Amino acid sequence: MKINQQRYWDLLMQLAEITDPERPYTRRSFSDLFLDGRQWLTEQMQAAGLETHIDTAGNLIGTLKGNNPNGKCIAIGSHSDTVPSGGRFDGIAGVIAGLECVLSWRDRGVAFDHDVQIIDFLAEEPSEWGISCVGSRGISGFLDDKLKSTPHPETGETLADAIARMGGSPEQLQKRNDIAAFFEIHIEQGRVLETEKLAVGVVTGIVGIIRLEIVLKGQSNHAGTTPMTIRQDALTTGASVISHAANLATQMDADSEHYLVATCGQVFVSPNASNVVPGEVRLVFDIRSDNKPLMEDFVGQLQAFTQSQADANDISITSWKRLTDTTPVKSDEALMQHLDNACENQGISHQRMPSGAGHDAAFMAHLAPMAMVFVPSLAGKSHCPEEWTEKEELGKGVSVLAEAIEAFDRG
Amino acid sequence: MKINQQRYWDLLMQLAEITDPERPYTRRSFSDLFLDGRQWLTEQMQAAGLETHIDTAGNLIGTLKGNNPNGKCIAIGSHSDTVPSGGRFDGIAGVIAGLECVLSWRDRGVAFDHDVQIIDFLAEEPSEWGISCVGSRGISGFLDDKLKSTPHPETGETLADAIARMGGSPEQLQKRNDIAAFFEIHIEQGRVLETEKLAVGVVTGIVGIIRLEIVLKGQSNHAGTTPMTIRQDALTTGASVISHAANLATQMDADSEHYLVATCGQVFVSPNASNVVPGEVRLVFDIRSDNKPLMEDFVGQLQAFTQSQADANDISITSWKRLTDTTPVKSDEALMQHLDNACENQGISHQRMPSGAGHDAAFMAHLAPMAMVFVPSLAGKSHCPEEWTEKEELGKGVSVLAEAIEAFDRG
Repeated sequence: MKINQQRYWDLLMQLAEITDPERPYTRRSFSDLFLDGRQWLTEQMQAAGLETHIDTAGNLIGTLKGNNPNGKCIAIGSHSDTVPSGGRFDGIAGVIAGLECVLSWRDRGVAFDHDVQIIDFLAEEPSEWGISCVGSRGISGFLDDKLKSTPHPETGETLADAIARMGGSPEQLQKRNDIAAFFEIHIEQGRVLETEKLAVGVVTGIVGIIRLEIVLKGQSNHAGTTPMTIRQDALTTGASVISHAANLATQMDADSEHYLVATCGQVFVSPNASNVVPGEVRLVFDIRSDNKPLMEDFVGQLQAFTQSQADANDISITSWKRLTDTTPVKSDEALMQHLDNACENQGISHQRMPSGAGHDAAFMAHLAPMAMVFVPSLAGKSHCPEEWTEKEELGKGVSVLAEAIEAFDRG
Repeated sequence: MKINQQRYWDLLMQLAEITDPERPYTRRSFSDLFLDGRQWLTEQMQAAGLETHIDTAGNLIGTLKGNNPNGKCIAIGSHSDTVPSGGRFDGIAGVIAGLECVLSWRDRGVAFDHDVQIIDFLAEEPSEWGISCVGSRGISGFLDDKLKSTPHPETGETLADAIARMGGSPEQLQKRNDIAAFFEIHIEQGRVLETEKLAVGVVTGIVGIIRLEIVLKGQSNHAGTTPMTIRQDALTTGASVISHAANLATQMDADSEHYLVATCGQVFVSPNASNVVPGEVRLVFDIRSDNKPLMEDFVGQLQAFTQSQADANDISITSWKRLTDTTPVKSDEALMQHLDNACENQGISHQRMPSGAGHDAAFMAHLAPMAMVFVPSLAGKSHCPEEWTEKEELGKGVSVLAEAIEAFDRG
């Protein structure tokens, strides 16, 4: 084992315990608790011999100076913020992994040519501003003026002002061009590794996400006095769209070599009264694939079906809008090979797999060769206090990561 | 015309204007505004020569003494409370109709054998206690101790205490047995009369209502990392139930001589987050018919379909509960004949039709022969400020009512 798994676990649990005590495990981005977590992280980084600073996008960076300081750096990162009532692993497992790698390299006397940066990205989870991956967007050219001017729904503070409050300089954002390779380790948040009884997933790429808002408008009417034949019930049309979407995605995923999932996660019915025929429904679909044409094909077919149902039932489609539209990214083959080799060298079971979840790595892939390591999630649970990965499972993943980075540095 | 339609209209508008000025037209039961309305009504009743009192169930009653005071009375009633942001007609059109009948009988020197009672029923619309038709339930044996002990969700005041606050004596409720006939006039709240270009609907009966709560439980999962094939998505199963219910009700209504409507008006998705596969949905269906066996057949078929879908998708039905279950009631043939005759005598277009909405008359039908008059609703709109019926349309309905009551009294 290339790292000290007990030390890693202890550091992880120390940061996890910096939580809102009323709803563990919560450390929301932009909050005072988040800054408490960062203060602790900064101290740990400095104790490990790293130089620390906050970059323009509000990311906390700890730098281990290499022997060839004019070259590009190797970056290892993830995030220290959480969803409300989240778990102990999502995000910080990847940040603390970078710290443990540095500590173990010091223990083993491993020196690097490259600078190595440990990055705690700002606000990976959607915050009150409704935007995910703020920090990794900020350094990869994906945080434009429109996003930066998004106001907080209650206080009105812009996202730019909030980034500045975290120590960033959002008016000076620039796309970085000094990264030689980016590595991230993260819990899988799914059940594939557990089901396959494998220790490590070498991520082949990260899905793109289309988040689609569909608003259907009919006519609210009295549920008792309006005969079935003269209704314009927006919900029955919406229900047929929800059913069809699930069947269509299942079929298209089965028929394709690529991965496709589609989820209607949000339904808002208006007026949502038991004795009123629904006049309007708003549906939000989350569509993900590692193949952009497959997603677009799905969206096109869903739109045709929705239009035909709406026409047949005298319903209007008053909104068909993409709230999110990101492109799938691929991991770098050479970096994946380093990870595969490290697994083989250490006798750790592994497979390649796509990531169905979004990660900071998806933005970093636009800057540099990228690779990710997944470790198993118990029962696939994530974003909840029951989120769990065993110490030994985490240890294997971090150990593989450490060896792959060493191999990359040697070239 | 047997009544003074201008005077009727003026009285109607005076009471309609007793409204919460921030959200016309609102006069919620049990509120101070409701009591202001009742104070005005009491004064109008007394000015028309009626003796007024509040009965045990909190209903305001104005009595016109007849020449045979030991006999049973004729009752005319509806309600003066409204939904939030309701209209100017729902309810008070029927209460003021009784008052205008009395005034017009006085004008025309018509004397009655029966006592005539004008009843303003308490809390016909569902109040904060979630119970409709409180006053008509109270005098017909349908307000049991369980309902009376219902607490207000915020203040904890029981419904019984609230009835007492309105001047009732809820501990002394008794089923009345002194009513010879009950008449109610109400706006249709649907589009049938408007579509058929008819002035008056003679109501053949009032639908029964089954309000059904269905809770489906699956498993919340990450929308990106959970392949389609291993999901337990409660919403897709719920959506298929919603679609099926609408198709089934349309078919069963078409195939039957009876009226049937089924509406899924409320959907609650948990956690209702765009990136989470829904773990639970709660659906509320409102099912109405003038024929109880037809409703039960519908519910049985819906349950079989829901169970088959749940089984096929590894979903549990954790609740299948009737929140409301009322029996359809029929109008009295002799009273309907009096209304038909009055229409014919006055040259007013009319048809017989069921009521798809619930009314106080549905409870009064358990005590006495009952009949109802419907007048047209513009575009079928109700429970909204746009609710509208023309003065002349209301005048025709009240005039028919007055003549039918006179005819009934003569025997």
